[in-house]
Amino acid sequence: MDQGMIKGVQGFRFATRPAGIRKAGRTDLALIFSEVPALCAGVFTTNKVVAAPVTLTAPRIRRGECQAILVNSGNANACTGEPGLQNARRCGDLAARALGIDPELVAVSSTGVIGAPLPMDRFEEHVPLLAADLAADGAMAVAEAIMTTDSFPKVSAAQGEAGGRPYTILGVAKGAGMIHPNMATMLAFVLTDAAVEPALLDQALRQGVDLSFNSITVDRDTSTNDMVLVLANGLAANPVICRGTPEGEAFAAELNAILLDLAKMIVRDGEGATKLVEIRVRGAVSYGEARQAACSVATSNLVKTAFFGEDANWGRIIAAVGYSGAEVDPEKIDILFGDVQVVRNGLTTGKELEERATAILKTPEFTVTVDLHLGDGAASYYTSDLTYDYVKINAAYRT
Amino acid sequence: MDQGMIKGVQGFRFATRPAGIRKAGRTDLALIFSEVPALCAGVFTTNKVVAAPVTLTAPRIRRGECQAILVNSGNANACTGEPGLQNARRCGDLAARALGIDPELVAVSSTGVIGAPLPMDRFEEHVPLLAADLAADGAMAVAEAIMTTDSFPKVSAAQGEAGGRPYTILGVAKGAGMIHPNMATMLAFVLTDAAVEPALLDQALRQGVDLSFNSITVDRDTSTNDMVLVLANGLAANPVICRGTPEGEAFAAELNAILLDLAKMIVRDGEGATKLVEIRVRGAVSYGEARQAACSVATSNLVKTAFFGEDANWGRIIAAVGYSGAEVDPEKIDILFGDVQVVRNGLTTGKELEERATAILKTPEFTVTVDLHLGDGAASYYTSDLTYDYVKINAAYRT
Repeated sequence: MDQGMIKGVQGFRFATRPAGIRKAGRTDLALIFSEVPALCAGVFTTNKVVAAPVTLTAPRIRRGECQAILVNSGNANACTGEPGLQNARRCGDLAARALGIDPELVAVSSTGVIGAPLPMDRFEEHVPLLAADLAADGAMAVAEAIMTTDSFPKVSAAQGEAGGRPYTILGVAKGAGMIHPNMATMLAFVLTDAAVEPALLDQALRQGVDLSFNSITVDRDTSTNDMVLVLANGLAANPVICRGTPEGEAFAAELNAILLDLAKMIVRDGEGATKLVEIRVRGAVSYGEARQAACSVATSNLVKTAFFGEDANWGRIIAAVGYSGAEVDPEKIDILFGDVQVVRNGLTTGKELEERATAILKTPEFTVTVDLHLGDGAASYYTSDLTYDYVKINAAYRT
Repeated sequence: MDQGMIKGVQGFRFATRPAGIRKAGRTDLALIFSEVPALCAGVFTTNKVVAAPVTLTAPRIRRGECQAILVNSGNANACTGEPGLQNARRCGDLAARALGIDPELVAVSSTGVIGAPLPMDRFEEHVPLLAADLAADGAMAVAEAIMTTDSFPKVSAAQGEAGGRPYTILGVAKGAGMIHPNMATMLAFVLTDAAVEPALLDQALRQGVDLSFNSITVDRDTSTNDMVLVLANGLAANPVICRGTPEGEAFAAELNAILLDLAKMIVRDGEGATKLVEIRVRGAVSYGEARQAACSVATSNLVKTAFFGEDANWGRIIAAVGYSGAEVDPEKIDILFGDVQVVRNGLTTGKELEERATAILKTPEFTVTVDLHLGDGAASYYTSDLTYDYVKINAAYRT
């Protein structure tokens, strides 16, 4: 999986522009185009306050075909009412006309401030120019154009093989928490030239998102604009990859790995974050309860500030497990930082091991394992530390 | 309700000592004693990891009678296994022997670090001395002895009348978040000389806690040691106050007011907090959903950092309402800061009102109202802002 070698995906082309939506001189508008209509699947925000581009795009994706994605940063087009929806539709229409395709094949996506109308003149002017600029090697530029408070562009890619034909999967993502001044978003677009069965694509995306984007936390806020799309245009000309085959499993594993790679980049780039911590819960009575316990630890402000403080504070971890709602027997709980066990059967293993654990907390990436010793349920959550800079970034009016 | 006048409650006596459990020279051990066994009710942590004093005390309180409360700061006696439970019992026995009462009438309560054994020699030495020091006017000293990261002692009191006889209710509390190095706790003890029906006392406590201590948030962490006890010794010699009577309602209202007063003090004293904000949700389809939406807004790190930033950021509030799980129609949502409406029917009311709202955010205490316009459900949650100092206090090893 040498990503450095992968610059694009067969049949996909990219363009970006500084359109003046976010701030002058910075790329903020991007177009992804597939030469042929691609099979697609999508996962969208579960927030009941849904931004216009999600309202427009979700039913289009559900129809199963997509050929272009138009995405802007700088304005979320959320809480903008019926005019906002008309604007989203107009953006899609502009892209469709410039590309000469059916508007129903265009996905529209936005990230940025809530409650402000889209500057439509910027779109009218720049979308046609994007279509004229499409190039095969522009994926990194797209990742840059969709950044908001992100500090680095997020791209991950892999190659696979099906029926003797190589194929590529490439994903771009953005996200670093919800953001000043009003909000933000997690967006990810994954592109592949593999030919895959629709049911496989959909299932692999849902499982992959569950284990990646739905298992990370910077703050606990779910944006109005979250969107993960996967497009498969089939131009690798491999025999169609189906569910329940070794090739189907390999494809799903590769897609999962890319989604998890992108998701970890988002945590690593979390607002103010200095640590990436995997919270691994095992021995729960079920997968669901393992997730519940892992989520409770991963989202605890006290646990996250202790990570920032490089403090092997297992008391806060055991408390967060205790109030997670998962079934626990306090006298069976083990806790490890890396491979150093600080709690056995709910009791401290002593000062010496706690000091060894502190050395692990000083590293930028580590794992906390909580073993409940009740069953086979296991799950991981990825979290960042809670720092001065998180407060600074999000209290921007004061700082 | 001139609290300044109320120094004690008939028949209750108090003592405190610097016992060397927390740090040298600071009071950290307190005893509350009623001359006669008091009717009691209690609410305890819902954390599944329960500290030894809670395990010991909860069944004693459920029996309905209590005559003494022994409480220490500096050590939570949590995650200490069977020896911890034996130590808690020994503490209660020491108090019972010193007071000449049945050990089953003693409640034991602890707050402080998790996972360390209680220094029993300190209790052996100091509990008998406490019993010899009891005085009627020591409630404030008890509030001081149970402080951990609290910056001020928390006492609230009121007087009522039943059957022409005056009675007093007095409460003390501690709590400012969960705390360095390992934890902490919310504790509250409410004492009254009123004679009340057991069912009224229990019901009034549960309702009051629901509207007060269960409606506040500093961080979202539920400690292993949380405990609220109310003791009613009946020495006011009033006719017993019963449920479903005007006097019963008045008693419950007074108890509620004291619990809410103490709960607000805890938020005001929240770790690093500079603001006390009431999140008032109305127009929800039910009380439960109003609570759910209010809790979601009150616990959002993004909302709390925006409060610190004095930023009228309604986008974060509407997003938190949207992912709360409560039923919402985005096009019906109104949001007000104080009496300034910044959102009507899910849309901004404009820059001018947003600037007026910013002035309200600069005050130390204000209300945010979210009207969902779907039904009659209404509930309030009280929250603090999330500040640099919260991070500093909780990442203490690093700072």
